[in-house]
Amino acid sequence: MNKVKVGIVGLGRQGIDQARNIAFRIPNAELMAVNSIIKEEVQEVQQNWGIPYGYTDYNEMLANEELDAIVIISPSPEHCWQIEAALDAGFHVFSEKPLGVSMEECKIAERAVERNEDKVFMLGFMRRYDPSYAYAKQRIQEGSIGKPILVRATSIDPESTIEGAIRFAATSGGLFLDMTVHDIDLARWFLESDVKSLYATGGCYLHEEFEQYGDGDNVAALMHFENGTMAMFHSGRNAPHGYHVETEIVGTHGTLRIGSVPQENQVMIFDNHGARQECVNGFQERFEEAYRLELQEFIDCILEERKPDVSVYDGTKSTEVAYAATESFRENKLMTFKKEVSQSNE
Amino acid sequence: MNKVKVGIVGLGRQGIDQARNIAFRIPNAELMAVNSIIKEEVQEVQQNWGIPYGYTDYNEMLANEELDAIVIISPSPEHCWQIEAALDAGFHVFSEKPLGVSMEECKIAERAVERNEDKVFMLGFMRRYDPSYAYAKQRIQEGSIGKPILVRATSIDPESTIEGAIRFAATSGGLFLDMTVHDIDLARWFLESDVKSLYATGGCYLHEEFEQYGDGDNVAALMHFENGTMAMFHSGRNAPHGYHVETEIVGTHGTLRIGSVPQENQVMIFDNHGARQECVNGFQERFEEAYRLELQEFIDCILEERKPDVSVYDGTKSTEVAYAATESFRENKLMTFKKEVSQSNE
Amino acid sequence: MNKVKVGIVGLGRQGIDQARNIAFRIPNAELMAVNSIIKEEVQEVQQNWGIPYGYTDYNEMLANEELDAIVIISPSPEHCWQIEAALDAGFHVFSEKPLGVSMEECKIAERAVERNEDKVFMLGFMRRYDPSYAYAKQRIQEGSIGKPILVRATSIDPESTIEGAIRFAATSGGLFLDMTVHDIDLARWFLESDVKSLYATGGCYLHEEFEQYGDGDNVAALMHFENGTMAMFHSGRNAPHGYHVETEIVGTHGTLRIGSVPQENQVMIFDNHGARQECVNGFQERFEEAYRLELQEFIDCILEERKPDVSVYDGTKSTEVAYAATESFRENKLMTFKKEVSQSNE
Amino acid sequence: MNKVKVGIVGLGRQGIDQARNIAFRIPNAELMAVNSIIKEEVQEVQQNWGIPYGYTDYNEMLANEELDAIVIISPSPEHCWQIEAALDAGFHVFSEKPLGVSMEECKIAERAVERNEDKVFMLGFMRRYDPSYAYAKQRIQEGSIGKPILVRATSIDPESTIEGAIRFAATSGGLFLDMTVHDIDLARWFLESDVKSLYATGGCYLHEEFEQYGDGDNVAALMHFENGTMAMFHSGRNAPHGYHVETEIVGTHGTLRIGSVPQENQVMIFDNHGARQECVNGFQERFEEAYRLELQEFIDCILEERKPDVSVYDGTKSTEVAYAATESFRENKLMTFKKEVSQSNE
Repeated sequence: MNKVKVGIVGLGRQGIDQARNIAFRIPNAELMAVNSIIKEEVQEVQQNWGIPYGYTDYNEMLANEELDAIVIISPSPEHCWQIEAALDAGFHVFSEKPLGVSMEECKIAERAVERNEDKVFMLGFMRRYDPSYAYAKQRIQEGSIGKPILVRATSIDPESTIEGAIRFAATSGGLFLDMTVHDIDLARWFLESDVKSLYATGGCYLHEEFEQYGDGDNVAALMHFENGTMAMFHSGRNAPHGYHVETEIVGTHGTLRIGSVPQENQVMIFDNHGARQECVNGFQERFEEAYRLELQEFIDCILEERKPDVSVYDGTKSTEVAYAATESFRENKLMTFKKEVSQSNE
Repeated sequence: MNKVKVGIVGLGRQGIDQARNIAFRIPNAELMAVNSIIKEEVQEVQQNWGIPYGYTDYNEMLANEELDAIVIISPSPEHCWQIEAALDAGFHVFSEKPLGVSMEECKIAERAVERNEDKVFMLGFMRRYDPSYAYAKQRIQEGSIGKPILVRATSIDPESTIEGAIRFAATSGGLFLDMTVHDIDLARWFLESDVKSLYATGGCYLHEEFEQYGDGDNVAALMHFENGTMAMFHSGRNAPHGYHVETEIVGTHGTLRIGSVPQENQVMIFDNHGARQECVNGFQERFEEAYRLELQEFIDCILEERKPDVSVYDGTKSTEVAYAATESFRENKLMTFKKEVSQSNE
Repeated sequence: MNKVKVGIVGLGRQGIDQARNIAFRIPNAELMAVNSIIKEEVQEVQQNWGIPYGYTDYNEMLANEELDAIVIISPSPEHCWQIEAALDAGFHVFSEKPLGVSMEECKIAERAVERNEDKVFMLGFMRRYDPSYAYAKQRIQEGSIGKPILVRATSIDPESTIEGAIRFAATSGGLFLDMTVHDIDLARWFLESDVKSLYATGGCYLHEEFEQYGDGDNVAALMHFENGTMAMFHSGRNAPHGYHVETEIVGTHGTLRIGSVPQENQVMIFDNHGARQECVNGFQERFEEAYRLELQEFIDCILEERKPDVSVYDGTKSTEVAYAATESFRENKLMTFKKEVSQSNE
Repeated sequence: MNKVKVGIVGLGRQGIDQARNIAFRIPNAELMAVNSIIKEEVQEVQQNWGIPYGYTDYNEMLANEELDAIVIISPSPEHCWQIEAALDAGFHVFSEKPLGVSMEECKIAERAVERNEDKVFMLGFMRRYDPSYAYAKQRIQEGSIGKPILVRATSIDPESTIEGAIRFAATSGGLFLDMTVHDIDLARWFLESDVKSLYATGGCYLHEEFEQYGDGDNVAALMHFENGTMAMFHSGRNAPHGYHVETEIVGTHGTLRIGSVPQENQVMIFDNHGARQECVNGFQERFEEAYRLELQEFIDCILEERKPDVSVYDGTKSTEVAYAATESFRENKLMTFKKEVSQSNE
């Protein structure tokens, strides 16, 4: 079997999960190298899993000519330069979202992808690869619901992880960039169009700590797309029941709703609290399969010499919209997209 | 508007509920007389609702020639003689289930009905008139699920009413006669056949108080019908979540399931207990509409000179089967119905 | 029993349904008079139900001194003057929504209510009296979900009634005034605040016939409230599955969702289409109980000398917001409420 | 990493699925050898996946001293002798269910396990390893539902696979042995007791082809356990909606229900068929994860020198009960277990 030789950068929780997928759950991939600035992390993975190469310096890993592809699961501010360096060094590249933490960075990544067009570049909008989302997309393409006209999306992190969210707030970019960006990508994917105008609102209703960063604990946005369709978003930080990601696609002849109850499993409990289902605790649990399947798709694209469904432009566009939503929320104004983001009343 | 003039016997909780239905919610009926052995109950209803006649003696009410129909919501041991007396006095008769507390009593009622065949007699198997059950029956008659082959039924009283159930245990006739009898009627109705053989089991798993009466707090039965179809029953006394009545009809080409979650209303709650629905608290709440609709049907039958779907024989047959199930449960033996109930090994 | 004597104006489908409720399902009310400009309608109801008084002229009915209260279910443009005339003639008044078809009319009604403050006036925002909505409100008042921060509402008429909707389009006032106005009222009720700014969008995605009236077949709006809370709305004309009214109230400590599946009954069908529930066909079916309960509340308010939860100002405010949403949708601009409705960029 | 070297016998659809799990999805296992009597199957797998050893003769595989464990996914009549041979040759053994096709065979396997007690033997009752079933068991052990008193189980194959089921009918052993045996194992597991008496019934309601084998297309059984608890079973061949496996465990203080709707994914569809979920198509789809996890547990048991939860006696007991149910169904009699299976009336 022809196997793609992979090096990974970033060995935090998400990095380890994806390293494990590459090492053990993707038959046509081989984890050959691991890279982290923390030497102990590198050594531990190498020893436990028998990985031949370990690096604390990213550029040293890029010098390893045995590798075919680089998977980037490092902190967000590292994504863009690592993408550019890996592509220019001749590797296929997968990067965890977001593409970058500023529009300038995103443009740098765009240009790197453009000048290395023989390479596979894929961005980690994993929700597209979740079996339920993929099924919905397929049904839409088959015409089951007619023409999609509205996407309604809810993404709420569990209250149980609020401490981490507060710690992360200074650098997260805010709810729209951190959470809603996934829903924006899905809306663009389902509606097959780009945002034309948007209005956003929200606030700190339970956790005032987010306010100092111009962020909210719950935000909402309504967007009008270039092809006349619509999308509504609610994102939050404090669902008491768990991690709630729900998406509805309304079409002219039917509606698909994904994850209406974010059930942990197929067990219903009847007890003194009523008839109930317990809910998933976080994105790792909800999208475990999606995370594996997106990497599988990346590897298959390399071997089959084709491009994935998620392009670098999806990263740029979603980021641009998330920034505009943040501005709308902060300044209570309507945002309109022309060539450049602008206010409505200019 | 032509109105049926009704006298009611029994002004306990259920009697009051049905008296209210007759007085205020059934346009073509008029509550003319109320009867209870407790004088205060009679006076209170007469005064509050302006009811012309009040009686503490049942036979005096039967002497009132203004009345057209008698509705019996008295204690179970009174049903049969009151049915017989009212029919023989020339009234249409509705009786709350059970028909009687012994097979002998049931036969007395059967004969009274037979010798007054110009009168409407109806037994209160109200579940048949619940909109969801009626809808299921209609769908089956339209052929939506092919031929029905299996009825699976669950009926569990809420743990919150356990004290009353224990007090009532000495005279209830046991779980099969008190609860399962409704499911037996439904199974006969949906499967359009009579029970041929059955096996029942159960026990006192939480509330040992029932044991002294040869009763259980949870019982189950499997029945084989004359037309080859099947039914499975679970009845209980202690659902922590509420009043759970669920019925499934499996057909050759589809299945209908009624009341899978005994929801109190259309509200789903997402909180630290998960995603949940609160459940109905008792039969009055679950079957409020059915209780009204069965009386409406009784009145309509009188005015339209037709017979209701529920006959006196449905009462006799269900009671007979419930007795056999009780015997099977107590003696751990297979029961077979020929002309008479008999043991399997005779 | 002390009964409120009621006269009703309007005997269309909805008028007949409410007349029937007054006549037969509300114990402490008596339907004494019916009024319609169509003589045959009046005569038919009088004869069928034995109603003493019939009128083809509204003012003649108001001259009937036996009556205590007037129930108005006439066409929308008649509401305001009939409200004013009835109040000034000394009657308690119930009016079907909308309060009026212009802000000027609404103000006329407001003033009539103000100068007759000893009379009960109630507007037919019936959803508040639906058992599920009432339960949600009660749970919120008990603090079950903390502080409400977001209302998300969906209201879609069934595709099966599209022809009537198109015929009605010229005079309906548009989707926001005809449908969303109910959700706006609910949002104000649940969030206990008024709208501060809003943005709306939408279009004709399946039925272009609405376009000539500046209306859409699907519209959406996002609103920011004075107390910082939010509401999102989606209203439409063409749900293939039935009448879909769903409302979610997100609180700081829990979420309530009402009508997530607009189930027709408690039957689940398992067949070659999967596991499914059939859905309600229209507002009459979904809110049958609510229509009865709102009138019951109106009657009870009269007898108990108190005011209902829905005031005339709820009618004015909801109408004002619905007009602003319509303008936002038509002109793609942010609307901000100060004392008066104004555009965002003034 | 220390890896268990595995040889597999049987490369049919299920065999290939499990071979793939061993080769690619279980990190601490290595697929070293494949065995099938069809040479082409062996060669294809070896070439595609690079498996070092291939055999058409089972005993030759057992002579390979590099192997640690044998996984048996061969036709049912081969299971017992292959189990015995592999254990006696010094290997750890996993066998797909059923243990054997007669009680004599099961006893042979039992004795082989007993005389090789240092080896891990595991039987493929995979449902115990499905995340939802495992979660239910854990909750029960934690006391969440009090004492389990009733298991109710439904297992229905999809109508779409009926042709295969009919072809397989002559050798399947019948519905109780082929399908219900899984539910019997689960009931014994959840109730922690053995069957004392049982009654079964059923018939051919749609597909008469099963009748010639003394089999039905739908069967049901009620069982009484030694510790006083109960279980009810319904098994069938022709669910129009898909593969329906549902299990309910009723406890003294709560109920757990697994798979009430056998949903294919988390998508709800609203269209002209109502609000619906599509259902899984077969056991491979429903229990894909369970099949992987049971093998993972087998491998972990070997490396950690412990025994799995499923023992050889679980295989023998479930088979014994399934045979008794078949006899009860065929002869319409109550079966009672003493030391040996016997009729109730002996």
